[in-house]
Amino acid sequence: MSLDQPQFSFSVSHKDGFARAGTFSTPHGPVATPQFMPVGTLASVKSLDPDDLTRLGATMVLANAYHLRLRPGDEMIRTMGGLHQFMQWHRPILTDSGGFQVFSLEGLRTIEEEGVAFRSHLDGSLQQFTPESVMRIERNLGADVIMQFDHVVPGQSPHDLAKIAMERSIRWLERCRVAFDALQAEDTLAPTPVQALFPIVQGGIHADLRQASARAIRNAGDWVGYGIGGLSVGEAKPDMYAMLDVVNTELPTDKPRYLMGVGFPEDLVEGVARGVDLFDCVAPTRMGRTGAFFTSAGRKNIKNAQWRLDSTPLEDGCTCAACTRFSKAYIRHLFVAEEILGLRLLSLHNVHFLVALMRDARAAVQDGTFSGWSRDWLARYHSSKLSS
Amino acid sequence: MSLDQPQFSFSVSHKDGFARAGTFSTPHGPVATPQFMPVGTLASVKSLDPDDLTRLGATMVLANAYHLRLRPGDEMIRTMGGLHQFMQWHRPILTDSGGFQVFSLEGLRTIEEEGVAFRSHLDGSLQQFTPESVMRIERNLGADVIMQFDHVVPGQSPHDLAKIAMERSIRWLERCRVAFDALQAEDTLAPTPVQALFPIVQGGIHADLRQASARAIRNAGDWVGYGIGGLSVGEAKPDMYAMLDVVNTELPTDKPRYLMGVGFPEDLVEGVARGVDLFDCVAPTRMGRTGAFFTSAGRKNIKNAQWRLDSTPLEDGCTCAACTRFSKAYIRHLFVAEEILGLRLLSLHNVHFLVALMRDARAAVQDGTFSGWSRDWLARYHSSKLSS
Repeated sequence: MSLDQPQFSFSVSHKDGFARAGTFSTPHGPVATPQFMPVGTLASVKSLDPDDLTRLGATMVLANAYHLRLRPGDEMIRTMGGLHQFMQWHRPILTDSGGFQVFSLEGLRTIEEEGVAFRSHLDGSLQQFTPESVMRIERNLGADVIMQFDHVVPGQSPHDLAKIAMERSIRWLERCRVAFDALQAEDTLAPTPVQALFPIVQGGIHADLRQASARAIRNAGDWVGYGIGGLSVGEAKPDMYAMLDVVNTELPTDKPRYLMGVGFPEDLVEGVARGVDLFDCVAPTRMGRTGAFFTSAGRKNIKNAQWRLDSTPLEDGCTCAACTRFSKAYIRHLFVAEEILGLRLLSLHNVHFLVALMRDARAAVQDGTFSGWSRDWLARYHSSKLSS
Repeated sequence: MSLDQPQFSFSVSHKDGFARAGTFSTPHGPVATPQFMPVGTLASVKSLDPDDLTRLGATMVLANAYHLRLRPGDEMIRTMGGLHQFMQWHRPILTDSGGFQVFSLEGLRTIEEEGVAFRSHLDGSLQQFTPESVMRIERNLGADVIMQFDHVVPGQSPHDLAKIAMERSIRWLERCRVAFDALQAEDTLAPTPVQALFPIVQGGIHADLRQASARAIRNAGDWVGYGIGGLSVGEAKPDMYAMLDVVNTELPTDKPRYLMGVGFPEDLVEGVARGVDLFDCVAPTRMGRTGAFFTSAGRKNIKNAQWRLDSTPLEDGCTCAACTRFSKAYIRHLFVAEEILGLRLLSLHNVHFLVALMRDARAAVQDGTFSGWSRDWLARYHSSKLSS
């Protein structure tokens, strides 16, 4: 095993309950935690520019191995110098393995112990993902952090199905590790990224499975960081929070924990309270494209007629590039008129909102006021949401 | 008549043949001429942000009275403080009157001396534009320069039809002027924009009509500036250039001339050579959304497979925010994957290309090298265009 990677480290500077403020160091720089990571599925955070992301304070972004494998191809991206160079994001990048996407292809895929055979959602071509092939793809992409190939099941899956998927994910983790180590050692053609492999805790909404998964992963090695997968995929929120409580006590406290695909504001705050350090979600950009925007008083929609003559920003006091310039009336006009700038401004605001939320949470942990801060924040967010 | 407007002035600092370098001063600041004005039909230059436009050096932008009248409404924009405030563009703005749009609604409109009755392209509602109503709309929008309501006919229109439209445009100009003066004097509710009304030379591709139009407009007053309309609407390019030659000798040399809706690179250079100072066109953003991009060696398309692994920028040496960061391979990927950032990057590049082209033309006029510069530039642009 060669899990020792000196270019990665994690230090926790403050704790407040289970919430932590820390720094995750990567070959492309440090990430202050807790942190929200915007998602650039296809090597672009939809409707935003890397400069927008830098200006709003984003540090680490995601890209997706499944999507990039199909288009434009991981080998092509390697030829172009790797993801950082290709998309001109010179801060840390994390790639998801595509497990979630592959297992979502209901009816188009065959699951076997070896891996998953599936038809491309783009052209129907036959593809196969195995732990070994995914490690190769993620190496070609060249992100700092790469996720294991895992077996993902829907959030409400029964115990027997969740157990099969969890146990397979553990077996696949071992195969990922072997392939990862081999590639790091043998694949010396430039670019030769220094990467960290994160395992993924699975187990659905079953506490015993989550516990077993976390323990098996710990027994397999001392990982740079830990993913928590298979949540926010259809289960009830109390179930998700309960699983975070279980995993929180099972994972080592001196490594970063990344809650995959979770990105609604309230879930971020609840996650930090349960020891999570990293989050990602397409919600801020996907919702932004439908007109939805976050405020500290809940989620709103810009298409609502109530904003027609509203000269105030999306959120008073917000320092994002939309709120410091434009009125709700103007952004609403852009949406009604189907102007692309509207999508961009709401996406900017929503991503900024989550990045700033985690900055505030971090400050509260550092001040030792996280418990009160989070309680007040959640109360305000939930109470006003109902009235809009 | 009250055409004396001290907040507007024009000074020509250099001449080179008929080409001029000058400064058009407006209540929202100076415009160095020749200048290309990006088009923000619906109060947004499609896919771009006002900050993008500022960074690439745009000075004056257009918006459209027809489109804004229908959505979100000129009175609404006035309520929101006028166009500058609404779209957060604090440099000069020009509004087109909507003449071109209204007369394009073949089958949906009735032309009478009073004005044009038409059905909205959005909801079929019955609307009427008259010289008087258009002046009211353009005052509500509050641009610095507003265009008269004119009668526009297709580029290949026969002499009799072009003559009817040209003569009607002259009569409508007088009605516009009366309405404009009355509004400037009587309409004192804030915002009270200081505006200049530009007449529009019409006459199709008939030299005698263009001459008659220009003379009638000059006889009607000493205008702040002069529009040249009804070109680049289907006629052959040599016909357009011939009309510019005619108009060039008829219009006063101490006032800015604005060639409406003309914005292909070669047409800008040919226009400057014929005494034109201001240009606008949707081409750079519309073409950008289809994958086309300008280079000094002609127009190209980013979807072309030849760029798949091309690590060079759209144009070597270009200083735009796309070329200084991204490869053709990346931008091509964005187009293939239908990522919005692709539209934005090509629109940025294309608008920058035209703004920079006019900056270069201005420098050549100032240096007294315009004739050679334009000959070389056109030769390179045309020769290579054929090979791509």
